[in-house]
Amino acid sequence: MIDEASIINRLRRVIPSHAGPSHARRRAALRIPIGIGDDAAVLAASRGCEWVVSTDSFIEGVHFLARLHSPDAAGYKALARATSDLAAMGATPRYFLLTLSLPAQRAGAWLDGFACGMARAARRFGMRLVGGDVSRHSSVAATLTVIGDVRRGAALTRSGARPGDALYVSGELGAAQAGLETLRREGARASARHAHSYSLARHLSPDPRLRLALWLARNRLASAAMDISDGLSTDLARLCEASGVGAAVRAASLPLVREPGRVATPRDAAAALERALDGGEDYELLFTVPHRLASRVPKRLGGVPITRIGEITLKRKLVLLNADGRVQPLRAHGWDHFRK
Amino acid sequence: MIDEASIINRLRRVIPSHAGPSHARRRAALRIPIGIGDDAAVLAASRGCEWVVSTDSFIEGVHFLARLHSPDAAGYKALARATSDLAAMGATPRYFLLTLSLPAQRAGAWLDGFACGMARAARRFGMRLVGGDVSRHSSVAATLTVIGDVRRGAALTRSGARPGDALYVSGELGAAQAGLETLRREGARASARHAHSYSLARHLSPDPRLRLALWLARNRLASAAMDISDGLSTDLARLCEASGVGAAVRAASLPLVREPGRVATPRDAAAALERALDGGEDYELLFTVPHRLASRVPKRLGGVPITRIGEITLKRKLVLLNADGRVQPLRAHGWDHFRK
Repeated sequence: MIDEASIINRLRRVIPSHAGPSHARRRAALRIPIGIGDDAAVLAASRGCEWVVSTDSFIEGVHFLARLHSPDAAGYKALARATSDLAAMGATPRYFLLTLSLPAQRAGAWLDGFACGMARAARRFGMRLVGGDVSRHSSVAATLTVIGDVRRGAALTRSGARPGDALYVSGELGAAQAGLETLRREGARASARHAHSYSLARHLSPDPRLRLALWLARNRLASAAMDISDGLSTDLARLCEASGVGAAVRAASLPLVREPGRVATPRDAAAALERALDGGEDYELLFTVPHRLASRVPKRLGGVPITRIGEITLKRKLVLLNADGRVQPLRAHGWDHFRK
Repeated sequence: MIDEASIINRLRRVIPSHAGPSHARRRAALRIPIGIGDDAAVLAASRGCEWVVSTDSFIEGVHFLARLHSPDAAGYKALARATSDLAAMGATPRYFLLTLSLPAQRAGAWLDGFACGMARAARRFGMRLVGGDVSRHSSVAATLTVIGDVRRGAALTRSGARPGDALYVSGELGAAQAGLETLRREGARASARHAHSYSLARHLSPDPRLRLALWLARNRLASAAMDISDGLSTDLARLCEASGVGAAVRAASLPLVREPGRVATPRDAAAALERALDGGEDYELLFTVPHRLASRVPKRLGGVPITRIGEITLKRKLVLLNADGRVQPLRAHGWDHFRK
């Protein structure tokens, strides 16, 4: 029989909580005095650290489509996109809580797949499940609350960019959007056929830039940082607004994703530029570095390319510098739930 | 035009975050180095304290009904029920995060009412909003993540009850269920007509027993504690399972809610007993105290009655002792989302 306890047990069996080898369990017990199973979790702070907390919803029909996304992909992505907000702050991910509402017919095989995907993400990011809440609903809705820590005063924020700072992005832009387009065009089986497609992987299994962000925070190189979840044009506007500055982006410098084995037409190039500017869900890192420190930023870190795409400006406007020398306003056309 | 930013601004304008008089703002800034507006919040730990974290969903059609519950009542209750889990641990509530998905037509007056109710709860419990996430959906679904702190090692848990411990509840049982029945019977206008009804108030505006729980934690009186959210029969079973014990409850000792101005028939009495055992959402505190310390538990604390309702037993069964001397098994008939 399906009841709340059996659902919670399914999740606990699969997702790392207090489980693991005994030395890991002892270490975990020091950090998690009380884990799952009580009214709330109790967490011990690391010395000299501050807590970093964020929350994100993941809703069927909005953030994923059951006919296109496997339960495993949904489970992985739900945690990955929340964790990207910790990466954006330069924090080390530690714990998460999951609220999950779902129909009874999803409480079997679908739930097992979802838990497996989430467990994969939790292991990859070094996180443990410390609590949650389960209820019944007509469709699946999950909320992930993620908790990490950062050395006191070292958190990266959106608000520190200054005129003259160099502007960078990690990875390639537009990849997740290209992957979503492939999935929509070719259906759910595309994920099997295109198992090695870079853009499909970026859409299905985004990889928050934890290592790069931690490196930036530790070396105090970044004046501002955030993750690109709703598209560069929208997220850069948010960073500039928080910092009270503007930015100039060089179109030719943008690291566009290229699908292998295709000859690019001018129309392809225009579509790739649009995906890079307005496509959501790349979960790449957008950050600024004071001009005098820019030489210390490597071209690549842990296999992830780092690209300088422009500069922060005094004038509070966003502009795009085209290859032919034209300057055009860069408008926020990224994702907004209420404006689509 | 409705967009995410305008919704977030509506919430921030009404719900306490960094706002308040300047000395309060300075104190808050010390504790909340980074609040709303960045990818995540950064929180400083209090010296000698541990963090207590819990999360709870609040879904239209499941946890509230738009035709019966005003947006203000929904907003208050969403935060109050999550905060009750902090009370259950003996923690002091500090912060909360809100994920909210809603249809566009609820983003105006309904949202304002919801925010006002939530602000009322936040002020009452001394909490500040530090983050969240907004998205669009066909019906309203909120998830509240609440964060509090507790002196290191002082958290109340479910697992410490021992045979011979005295068993207590706060307040009156079945009140919220009686209130819900009134509301269902008399419709939304009941909330106006019965503005002074105790049971309706317990249903619409539950009051987590923060003061009592904090007192129990500070005085290290309780061997185990939890809040009653799904009904005494279900939640006592959870406490006993976590502690590896059983319990005997005296029916005649249960603090049943009585609607004023009515002569009680035997049928009324049976219904009141059933509400007390199986009715959910009372958010009263259920706790155990070692026998030798029981004389230190007052009859009332801060106006809230405290009633001894039975004892913890070695035998891992739950029994109800009736007034006529009969002993019957006490079965968990409280709320379960997947068994209703």
